[in-house]
Amino acid sequence: MFVILVYDFAQKRVNKALKIGRRYLHWVQNSVLEGEISKANFVKLKKELEMLIDPDEDSVILYTFRSQKYSQREEMGLKKGGDDNII
Amino acid sequence: MFVILVYDFAQKRVNKALKIGRRYLHWVQNSVLEGEISKANFVKLKKELEMLIDPDEDSVILYTFRSQKYSQREEMGLKKGGDDNII
Repeated sequence: MFVILVYDFAQKRVNKALKIGRRYLHWVQNSVLEGEISKANFVKLKKELEMLIDPDEDSVILYTFRSQKYSQREEMGLKKGGDDNII
Repeated sequence: MFVILVYDFAQKRVNKALKIGRRYLHWVQNSVLEGEISKANFVKLKKELEMLIDPDEDSVILYTFRSQKYSQREEMGLKKGGDDNII
């Protein structure tokens, strides 16, 4: 399945969140990761994020799609994806 | 159709970008808007963003889905959506 993960972590946890996210997905923009993921890895990803999250400060939204068949992705402006310019 | 808009604008343009986005979609998290939108409004939204964007500094990704039938949305941690706590 295809996942879009958007996250908003307190400064002191954001790097760890990104590190966890990048083990499973691709960084595409500030606070946004996406990619194909197996169900098993999706469960693992959520568990790792759950252990990191401070529910009073941090927020994660996970959009999952069985397939990308019915979707489109458009980029405007600067292309930020790819692993070299991580922020 | 359903749209997820993630944006990364330079500080001096980010409020304008959010203002444009919120005319068509719902703010759900820092730099993330989503919602159902007509094709006509989607074209208008993109035009307005296009006029604002500095292609050397700003980045927008638009994920569009014909329907939400094949998708799921999960939130972890703090729920940031709703119009009262805009950042």
